[in-house]
Amino acid sequence: MDDLNKQLDFIIELDRLKGVYRQALVKSDENRFENSAEHSWHISLTAQILHEYAVEKVDISRVTCMLLIHDIVEIDAGDMFAFSEPEALSEQENKEIAAANRLFGLLPEQQFQAYNQLWLEFESAETNDARFAKAMDRILPLLQNMRNEGGSWVRHNVKKSQLIDRNKHLEGLAPKLWLYVCRQIDLAVEQGWLEDA
Amino acid sequence: MDDLNKQLDFIIELDRLKGVYRQALVKSDENRFENSAEHSWHISLTAQILHEYAVEKVDISRVTCMLLIHDIVEIDAGDMFAFSEPEALSEQENKEIAAANRLFGLLPEQQFQAYNQLWLEFESAETNDARFAKAMDRILPLLQNMRNEGGSWVRHNVKKSQLIDRNKHLEGLAPKLWLYVCRQIDLAVEQGWLEDA
Repeated sequence: MDDLNKQLDFIIELDRLKGVYRQALVKSDENRFENSAEHSWHISLTAQILHEYAVEKVDISRVTCMLLIHDIVEIDAGDMFAFSEPEALSEQENKEIAAANRLFGLLPEQQFQAYNQLWLEFESAETNDARFAKAMDRILPLLQNMRNEGGSWVRHNVKKSQLIDRNKHLEGLAPKLWLYVCRQIDLAVEQGWLEDA
Repeated sequence: MDDLNKQLDFIIELDRLKGVYRQALVKSDENRFENSAEHSWHISLTAQILHEYAVEKVDISRVTCMLLIHDIVEIDAGDMFAFSEPEALSEQENKEIAAANRLFGLLPEQQFQAYNQLWLEFESAETNDARFAKAMDRILPLLQNMRNEGGSWVRHNVKKSQLIDRNKHLEGLAPKLWLYVCRQIDLAVEQGWLEDA
């Protein structure tokens, strides 16, 4: 039963991700801030719905698992806004690596290795699976902000070039989605929700 | 782009599940009520961690997809406490079938059929995949209540026999987990958190 107890401790520890809040707003629930657990659910399902647009080989089962675990490190490291200063982002990266070791380290050795590897693959964003997963993590805030009069972009003066750079994993991998994102970005500039720079 | 627009409308509609609240409490976030979106994330990951305990063939990719979508119907039908009166549960079932038709019906035809079928398979709880998915949906509230001094069991005077019946999908399918659950139920009775009946 020793492995099972480790796994159950990990599962209970996951509860804390429901108390980590992001910059995105939940329009349908009094415009409160979104937490990282419900966000992880939403993008996992987004990936299920949209993976038919990938024109390169993407394993949706691996992508889903990546998305389910991708934010767990925030339990220790907290959420950081995507367009923060470079030094802050670099410091955050170190915190997240330590968090992955502690949190996945609650699991039995074999699962620890598997989840840690999968999370590192996601972070590196080099494989098709990781690029698609990253793209899903980024397309959803775009959809949310477009329906929330620019949302966090407006509050943080985000630039068009930052957003294009952030969504570029779609280019080549899912051209139809990339085209859609580019159009939305242009629309957001027209509305004054993104700086034209 | 017509299919894509339908899919994006569905993805945006999913946001509303973050405003559907359950009986379980999130201990790590000021003991507020848990919503069905973050719950869906938690049990999807619970299934990933625990599926090695299944002794019959279980397709974890299908199970995960089932768990990601299983509560979407609550956007229209609301959440109902598991141990409500039979008439209320039967009325809820009809509401959920209508909800599945409307919500999955936002998707292109092929995806509508696929998700509706998968949801019906989950509800019927006859296949191994559906039984394992149901078991995950039920083991997590048990873990939560055990760490919350009985939680919703105490508030609603739940009986031991009800809980055994509710977790019986594990019997045969995942004997180690079934044994664990039975022990926890006995412990809860000892603590006075479940009625010994």
